[in-house]
Amino acid sequence: MAAAHSSSDGFAFDWIDGQRRGREAAGLVRTLRPRPADSPLLDLASNDYLGLARHPEVVEGAARAARRWGGGATGSRLVTGTTELHTRLERELAAFCGFESALVLSSGYAANLAAVTALAPHGSLIVSDAGNHASLIDGCRLARGTTQVVPHADPEAVRKALSTHDGPSVVVSDTVFSVDGDQAPLSELSHAAREFGAGLIVDDAHGLGVLGAGGRGAADAVGLAGAADTVVTVTLSKSFGSQGGAVLGPARVIDHLINTARTFIFDTGLAPAAAGAALAALELLRARPELARQAGQVARALHERLVAEGLTAVAPQAAVVSVRAPSPHEAVRWAADCREAGLSVGCFRPPSVPDGISRLRLTARADLTQDQIAEAVGVISRTAPAGAFTAGSR
Amino acid sequence: MAAAHSSSDGFAFDWIDGQRRGREAAGLVRTLRPRPADSPLLDLASNDYLGLARHPEVVEGAARAARRWGGGATGSRLVTGTTELHTRLERELAAFCGFESALVLSSGYAANLAAVTALAPHGSLIVSDAGNHASLIDGCRLARGTTQVVPHADPEAVRKALSTHDGPSVVVSDTVFSVDGDQAPLSELSHAAREFGAGLIVDDAHGLGVLGAGGRGAADAVGLAGAADTVVTVTLSKSFGSQGGAVLGPARVIDHLINTARTFIFDTGLAPAAAGAALAALELLRARPELARQAGQVARALHERLVAEGLTAVAPQAAVVSVRAPSPHEAVRWAADCREAGLSVGCFRPPSVPDGISRLRLTARADLTQDQIAEAVGVISRTAPAGAFTAGSR
Ligand SMILES: Cc1ncc(COP(=O)(O)O)c(C=O)c1O
Ligand SMILES: Cc1ncc(COP(=O)(O)O)c(C=O)c1O
Repeated sequence: MAAAHSSSDGFAFDWIDGQRRGREAAGLVRTLRPRPADSPLLDLASNDYLGLARHPEVVEGAARAARRWGGGATGSRLVTGTTELHTRLERELAAFCGFESALVLSSGYAANLAAVTALAPHGSLIVSDAGNHASLIDGCRLARGTTQVVPHADPEAVRKALSTHDGPSVVVSDTVFSVDGDQAPLSELSHAAREFGAGLIVDDAHGLGVLGAGGRGAADAVGLAGAADTVVTVTLSKSFGSQGGAVLGPARVIDHLINTARTFIFDTGLAPAAAGAALAALELLRARPELARQAGQVARALHERLVAEGLTAVAPQAAVVSVRAPSPHEAVRWAADCREAGLSVGCFRPPSVPDGISRLRLTARADLTQDQIAEAVGVISRTAPAGAFTAGSR
Repeated sequence: MAAAHSSSDGFAFDWIDGQRRGREAAGLVRTLRPRPADSPLLDLASNDYLGLARHPEVVEGAARAARRWGGGATGSRLVTGTTELHTRLERELAAFCGFESALVLSSGYAANLAAVTALAPHGSLIVSDAGNHASLIDGCRLARGTTQVVPHADPEAVRKALSTHDGPSVVVSDTVFSVDGDQAPLSELSHAAREFGAGLIVDDAHGLGVLGAGGRGAADAVGLAGAADTVVTVTLSKSFGSQGGAVLGPARVIDHLINTARTFIFDTGLAPAAAGAALAALELLRARPELARQAGQVARALHERLVAEGLTAVAPQAAVVSVRAPSPHEAVRWAADCREAGLSVGCFRPPSVPDGISRLRLTARADLTQDQIAEAVGVISRTAPAGAFTAGSR
């Protein structure tokens, strides 16, 4: 079709080509790899921590909701986009996680943008962990408040930052950091925030379904669920095997978001099928609370065996196991060799990693068997580049 | 649960209450109104322009996709979140709208954030229409480039802004403005952009399915589809009755987004059910191209009759009909009276409207009958506040 246009239409995006060549030279080109419905690969790459994305009840929850409510929500949540299904999901999520209220958005990304922007008005201070997820960072960038980035997992630095500010302030952190799988010092962060009357916003994308009693999340695990100064964001796209996100908190905070959060007000409501799938996953998790524990056990088993093989892996505090790779190029090659050998693993490298370190990212699933764990570890160590082993282990 | 916490947790969000009181005093409090699955109301509020959200084939498209692919995409599009279903949707969307490539994201909001941030790097200029949608505005705020806001629908102002800048630049505009339903001067904007070698990014959320041949969108309507300097964003949540968004453009632009757009890279892929529903809607639209025209006809009929009743309504250029209300309070009361009388209409007021004018927002649906149009107009004029009528009409 472009041929039908004048030659004057060709230059505007020429600058893109230079960036492309830079990425190629650095070995950092990303391409999409479409997967079939029935992949023969063993999956240690998805965030389907409880193995619920393809559970018959979750899938039927989606199908039933589409049939009853339609393919989409048809409008903003403030116009036609709030169905009784959305309200039910909000009620059940809040009750499960131990919060007064919940607000469902179309993604976890949108939930983080909403929470941070709405709770950091002009004149406020945001104290943000250096390892936070992109969506929290974008929330800080969009917020009218001033952001101060503090070193990773450092409550003392948070205290210091808060002590410089007069006026509303919030401390913002992932609960489980998505790349390395380490946990934030949640209790300490909460203490630091309280000392200065600051609010706490934590992103429990990788904690919901895995941490806390029966998967109630990181805030439940440390007794912060339902606190008047604590707001938790979650995603429905990981442990719940669906799509969407939610903000959990005091009723007045949720009311404030309904009235002010742009990614809530100006976005179409979550599709009914996604709400239905999430509700079914929540019901399954309530019926089988042991799923949460199992995901953690699988992660620890993976880690133990990888370390026994001489690889460098971060001790998992949830369901993410991160294995160090010597370089971006070798990480890509390693992940490709794993795939070749029947194993799907994540490959994280710059610029998607804040610290510049490339790694394989493995995710534990509650339903992985001992045999599958052994197979995965076998493939990973067989295909590992020499530089991935600790000195003396080989 | 909050009772279990120390009294020190109660102060952090106290500032919210003052804002709440301000909204109450101004009559601007928003609340959610959950709707049942089978609402008795006549719907002129949703963005379901083609009446497809509850079409059996769209609904079955969602259900089938959930069964075959699962409740969620399970990961980022770059890890496990790209299924063959996503790729098929991208291929078909690009072909239908006449673009080389397409990239599907979890919402239209995310698509706009992705397009604007990825195409406005450090040192670039963004020229943005004053009436643009919140998601484009947030894209400008997040982008590394500098934004210059120009008066609404003013190609001369665009030229002037572009003439001041040396380096990459983009012109950003809605095609159909969501509040008033007026169209951007697309050809003129494109000419202005080309004079200065700038790219053009247009948000066709309200044009896809309604404008262009068989609903191929605003770019098709003016011969810009497939141009090397033109990028179109769309949403799957309006005419397509689903959820999700997409960016359409040259292959090199799409490749650039895959590598750099944060709301693409760090977000879980669109749920399979939403992709399946959108594919079914696209197929229906291809089979019944007259749907697009019908939506426009219904809008024009609505407008004609409302004006004949003495109301002030903007001549619709797509499927949105905007009717002026004298004040926010009266707009709210008017919409409530319509609902009382069996008609669901949108009510837009500050701060959701850039110009501060309150209005009822009606959406035409391709499947509205003459009787339904007459009924709607009857209810709207019967319930209208006196100040809504033009002088001398009553
Ligand atoms: C820590 C964290 N927060 C938020 C998100 C965004 O959630 P969603 O994918 O549902 O938009 C992700 C990943 O996708 C994540 O890892
Ligand atoms: C003009 C415009 N652009 C973008 C969006 C966002 O699309 P979505 O709701 O799919 O996120 C909307 C409405 O929701 C809109 O009206």
